Amino acid sequence: MGELRLTEISEAFPDRVEVRGCDLVGDLMGRVGFTEYVHLLLTGKEPTEDQRFFLDLLLVSIAEHGLMPSNVAARMTLAADPRSLQGAVAAGILGAGPVVLGASEECARLLEQAVAAGRDPAEVARELQAAGERVPGFGHPLHKPVDPRAERILELADERGVSGPHIAYARALRDAVATERGKPLTMNVAMPMAAVLLDLGFPVVAAKAVPVLARTAGLLAHLAEEQEHPIGFELAERAARTSG
Amino acid sequence: MGELRLTEISEAFPDRVEVRGCDLVGDLMGRVGFTEYVHLLLTGKEPTEDQRFFLDLLLVSIAEHGLMPSNVAARMTLAADPRSLQGAVAAGILGAGPVVLGASEECARLLEQAVAAGRDPAEVARELQAAGERVPGFGHPLHKPVDPRAERILELADERGVSGPHIAYARALRDAVATERGKPLTMNVAMPMAAVLLDLGFPVVAAKAVPVLARTAGLLAHLAEEQEHPIGFELAERAARTSG
Amino acid sequence: MGELRLTEISEAFPDRVEVRGCDLVGDLMGRVGFTEYVHLLLTGKEPTEDQRFFLDLLLVSIAEHGLMPSNVAARMTLAADPRSLQGAVAAGILGAGPVVLGASEECARLLEQAVAAGRDPAEVARELQAAGERVPGFGHPLHKPVDPRAERILELADERGVSGPHIAYARALRDAVATERGKPLTMNVAMPMAAVLLDLGFPVVAAKAVPVLARTAGLLAHLAEEQEHPIGFELAERAARTSG
Amino acid sequence: MGELRLTEISEAFPDRVEVRGCDLVGDLMGRVGFTEYVHLLLTGKEPTEDQRFFLDLLLVSIAEHGLMPSNVAARMTLAADPRSLQGAVAAGILGAGPVVLGASEECARLLEQAVAAGRDPAEVARELQAAGERVPGFGHPLHKPVDPRAERILELADERGVSGPHIAYARALRDAVATERGKPLTMNVAMPMAAVLLDLGFPVVAAKAVPVLARTAGLLAHLAEEQEHPIGFELAERAARTSG
Repeated sequence: MGELRLTEISEAFPDRVEVRGCDLVGDLMGRVGFTEYVHLLLTGKEPTEDQRFFLDLLLVSIAEHGLMPSNVAARMTLAADPRSLQGAVAAGILGAGPVVLGASEECARLLEQAVAAGRDPAEVARELQAAGERVPGFGHPLHKPVDPRAERILELADERGVSGPHIAYARALRDAVATERGKPLTMNVAMPMAAVLLDLGFPVVAAKAVPVLARTAGLLAHLAEEQEHPIGFELAERAARTSG
Repeated sequence: MGELRLTEISEAFPDRVEVRGCDLVGDLMGRVGFTEYVHLLLTGKEPTEDQRFFLDLLLVSIAEHGLMPSNVAARMTLAADPRSLQGAVAAGILGAGPVVLGASEECARLLEQAVAAGRDPAEVARELQAAGERVPGFGHPLHKPVDPRAERILELADERGVSGPHIAYARALRDAVATERGKPLTMNVAMPMAAVLLDLGFPVVAAKAVPVLARTAGLLAHLAEEQEHPIGFELAERAARTSG
Repeated sequence: MGELRLTEISEAFPDRVEVRGCDLVGDLMGRVGFTEYVHLLLTGKEPTEDQRFFLDLLLVSIAEHGLMPSNVAARMTLAADPRSLQGAVAAGILGAGPVVLGASEECARLLEQAVAAGRDPAEVARELQAAGERVPGFGHPLHKPVDPRAERILELADERGVSGPHIAYARALRDAVATERGKPLTMNVAMPMAAVLLDLGFPVVAAKAVPVLARTAGLLAHLAEEQEHPIGFELAERAARTSG
Repeated sequence: MGELRLTEISEAFPDRVEVRGCDLVGDLMGRVGFTEYVHLLLTGKEPTEDQRFFLDLLLVSIAEHGLMPSNVAARMTLAADPRSLQGAVAAGILGAGPVVLGASEECARLLEQAVAAGRDPAEVARELQAAGERVPGFGHPLHKPVDPRAERILELADERGVSGPHIAYARALRDAVATERGKPLTMNVAMPMAAVLLDLGFPVVAAKAVPVLARTAGLLAHLAEEQEHPIGFELAERAARTSG
């Protein structure tokens, strides 16, 4: 076995660290912000100003949303093992499944394929409805009739002139879903998140990486609070209580 | 049981999301970047310009460092369960233990106590040496005699005039450790990270939250790459190979 | 909210613990073995002698298989956080994905549906081949042309007279797969595991629970060894080494 | 690099699997039960009849205890990602921290050192009390004044004649703690579990491996139930509800 480069992302040497072909210490540190660095890590390139703006916007929009199940699970886990912040973060991240945060990945896949194939939104809506499945990116237990975060993302995409075919498709799909069902269904934050990422040239995989990174920040805030004001066991007790 | 506020961080309502007393959609989205939002989430306050600069700097400095054990574990986990990005991220984060990334938390605790108590660095170095324990924040398997990331953080702290008693203590401790051992020992990135956070008024808990968030970004980059160029099983096989 | 029973599995009272309607302390402890208890927990009933025998057999057959990726990931994780046995176990279990241990669940689902619908094995083999997908329960990187564990399970099922329609179907599928491909393909341990569980009346869900529980035992053995003879960092270094 | 044996536990070959020097397929499968196999995996030796009996007893005693925090966290995680049983198990296991299940490891360490050093139980109780710390193995939120599982373990250890110096020390410590505090404090299941394991020759590390393995079985039962009767989101909602 000879010389073999396993990863293109980074390599550490005794006197320097190379990341995506850049000198981490001499070039990146102090010059690029974390959001730009996340873009560089994920895609190999520094972001344009619009890519940076919307990456920031999406990370901010999705990082925190009250005492969600993943925050509850993380706080309960920290209560049981107060020394292991990383264990509690891991427990919380495991709750970022397709029902919750993974929807943005499904949305991105759906949008990418439908736009590339030039599919009729009405047909897509009909198929999803017929299959009896949860339509990715639609419906929200709390935000009705609209998810204000979703609307704000669309608005800013229009304002800054980045709305392209994927955002147009997301809107058309919303109308088609409403027509198919006979009444509107909330388009949640996952759909415009996926759409704007694709319109800005991000790969599909970013559509899940963004909410996972964002929610990690929210989890860390909850765990910092938990260390000062523990409620983890109280949360577990409330959950399991057999009478009100 | 009456009305009870369990968390001060955020609360979601049908038509809005409140985070740290701010309106997420109407105020924060599009105005603050992710780094500023992380600060707001963790501490309840928006950062000063220096706090923002150094939070960015530290997140960038620690997010990625080659094919580290946590990246290897995450890639192996994704290979075994390609649909579960969050499972692979969780597996990687579980490797952010005290030996690796938790050192910054130990450094922060050590610095905070030593500075508050006005302890003699020589005495602290002697005690750590006598206890035969790994000295938190010192030593690195690769970066010798200096960790270039650590030096750059100190340099920028001086340049921007934020170096205070914790950075001064970190430097004094480095000299004391060298004297005690009779030769220099690399001060790794964990120590100046902890020192600059404390000098900027961050709580001790931030000293672990920062590297956990940063490494999540690195993990997501490795997992995006793994989805395109899988090496997870190859890594596992190399690790377990009984002959070279 | 009135009285509400959330789970049928167990409930703890100040002076006793009730599990599946039995008195844990006064009845089960000291009378039933762990394998019988696992059956009671999972299904609500104590096992027949055959159910107990094969549950033991399957747990033993699948618990350990050398330095597998999940064991490697767990040992690397313990090296980074030596105090958190549970974190290392969790990291290892996360590698029990569909590519590795989840195959038994896919096998159980396939067998259950095919037997219930009376489908022609040749047709099923043709479809799987045509779909170009990995056929669940077939193929093994090491065990060729047969997986000795799989053969032993079939043998014991025959010897003890428990082989039923699902085991018959597994064998027929093996022949059909060989015919379809023009050469034999190893039937791995996942397929007879699923088949014998179904023939003994276990639910499909048991087909994944059994390997997860079994592998936890293997992980715990590796982590006990790791605590005495640490190789975690060595494994990570071998995996990431860029030249042989 | 020449031939190197990394682990003594097992090795897989094309036609066989060797575990602790035994032939898995030809010897162990069908002959040993899972509990005996767990002993072999963990210690390298098959258990005596007493070791097998108490390993079964302890695994049964600790596997399940109602809707505990770890079960709640696991069910919430499965609700968010219904395809990932292993992710939900991992989330649950992460809650097996020192406050909950790790206490048995602390108990084993305390007992081993105190018995080896011949320390006066009254002095140990005084020190623990003075340190103001939670005394490992004492106190229980529900089981008062006694933990029936703890009493049953002691009773069976006496009945079967395996009670030795560690069980004697556990009892003496209970009396000393009561004297020191002026009133009895529940000796919970962790203390006799640790004591009987040590008296039977198990290593300290087994004192944590046993509850982790046992709770995995409980978690799997809850997750099987969750797949049939989902309550995960309901549990999360109850936990986070701001008014009763």
